[in-house]
Amino acid sequence: MQDFSYLFKKSDLIPVIAQDAETKQVLMLGYANEQAVRLTVETGTVWYWSRSRQELWNKGATSGNYLHVVEIFSDCDDDTLLITCIPDGPTCHTGSKSCFFNKIERDL
Amino acid sequence: MQDFSYLFKKSDLIPVIAQDAETKQVLMLGYANEQAVRLTVETGTVWYWSRSRQELWNKGATSGNYLHVVEIFSDCDDDTLLITCIPDGPTCHTGSKSCFFNKIERDL
Repeated sequence: MQDFSYLFKKSDLIPVIAQDAETKQVLMLGYANEQAVRLTVETGTVWYWSRSRQELWNKGATSGNYLHVVEIFSDCDDDTLLITCIPDGPTCHTGSKSCFFNKIERDL
Repeated sequence: MQDFSYLFKKSDLIPVIAQDAETKQVLMLGYANEQAVRLTVETGTVWYWSRSRQELWNKGATSGNYLHVVEIFSDCDDDTLLITCIPDGPTCHTGSKSCFFNKIERDL
């Protein structure tokens, strides 16, 4: 079993960015604990820790829209993950491909 | 002055993803408080809150490699930002374009 404890030296949860491996669109950001990272690596689909429900969350288990892992990267200080993936369908619960659709206008 | 307090209902800091607007490469993830978001919107360059130094941080102020804002999006539950930007140079302090260069191999 791979040891991912080095990612959790500062915090029990780390942010995990999911990016569409083909279109490069950033799909969502969730949080993962060590077990979620291990499950992501072992199953090949993205797992998060749901902070609101306080439980492990295999993204897509309810909607059917799983995120299939292509590559996983940690950042230079090993406290954030970027997962490139192939989504089965819209990632956002609103039906949007990406959760990032609220544009903030710069009222200068 | 724009009110960004709606982004900080759950936490004083939110994760902010910087993505290259042209290549779509995810460059880094940092954290922002409300003032950092306001400064980003007002100056057009990305500001973070440095958790290690406990101070506002205009990314690039030391290296010269600023991130010039193209668009800013919040996610569906307004607790994460995605900023598309044009970087002046390598974003990572290691000299890498992106901070996400540590590939995690799946030893299955």
